Amino acid sequence: MIEQQIKAAIRDIPDFPKPGIIFKDITTILKDPVLCINIVDAFVDQLKGKQIDVVAGVESRGFLFGLTLANRLGVPFVPVRKAGKLPHTVKQKTYDLEYGSAVIEMHVDAFEPGANVLLHDDLLATGGTITAASELINELGGTVCGFTFVVGLGFLGGKEKIAPINGDIIVLAEY
Amino acid sequence: MIEQQIKAAIRDIPDFPKPGIIFKDITTILKDPVLCINIVDAFVDQLKGKQIDVVAGVESRGFLFGLTLANRLGVPFVPVRKAGKLPHTVKQKTYDLEYGSAVIEMHVDAFEPGANVLLHDDLLATGGTITAASELINELGGTVCGFTFVVGLGFLGGKEKIAPINGDIIVLAEY
Repeated sequence: MIEQQIKAAIRDIPDFPKPGIIFKDITTILKDPVLCINIVDAFVDQLKGKQIDVVAGVESRGFLFGLTLANRLGVPFVPVRKAGKLPHTVKQKTYDLEYGSAVIEMHVDAFEPGANVLLHDDLLATGGTITAASELINELGGTVCGFTFVVGLGFLGGKEKIAPINGDIIVLAEY
Repeated sequence: MIEQQIKAAIRDIPDFPKPGIIFKDITTILKDPVLCINIVDAFVDQLKGKQIDVVAGVESRGFLFGLTLANRLGVPFVPVRKAGKLPHTVKQKTYDLEYGSAVIEMHVDAFEPGANVLLHDDLLATGGTITAASELINELGGTVCGFTFVVGLGFLGGKEKIAPINGDIIVLAEY
């Protein structure tokens, strides 16, 4: 039900960001406030009974549903940001991209040691960023206890990449 | 009341992003889910009776409360993003920074012509980005009908800069 609603709302953009790629545009989801609420409801429903101490959301689009989800679960939200954005003491993680590399950061006091951290992003593609974020959370003394994504691009293998990490992988709309 | 709650939660970071600047770190607000809900409640309360058709949030931190606010108001959320991030046809706006310039973009079909657009960001500093976003909304045929900020740095003159634009300016915690 939620999967059909999401897929009906998503817009396919051919050749973005480069020729041959069909980009899943989620901005059309954001135009539907009822669907947005249903998405968070679906996450909350599927997370029922899990011990979650913190929700971490990946910049930028993981901020969208990430904060709402944390608020609904009644737990802190912590941002995983690109390098140079977080003002307090940070820990960095560098990871490889198709061409070159990228750096993400979290505040060293983002959560208490031993916290169960739910990782959220809007879309699971190759899983590169989310794997780096998981490693960063581990290095900060947390335990990744699950993942939530609005959309998953199954053909890119992200689920297989993050499967060895502890925690359920919730993907509401899988391609 | 909400102002005191926000100020109590904010963390001052001296010398970020450069020497002499005291940065207002809002990530400590995000750790308090009750405060986050109170912030959105305060916006909704102060917006009562206003005709709002769309909430536009400025990347990245304007995505945090922006989507929740739009959902609570029952209207579409549209992102104002940095250049190259939005996949569909965009309109750009270039604006001056202290050193150099920056570019923001919105989808050309972000809202219907004539829409009343509420602009949201987490923090009002000099007002440069928010003024550029206002102009972009006008160029896309919308009318800015108000602004919401969690925090305002009054001494940087942002309120005076955006005052000539139509719409109330709601700042929950003013420094």
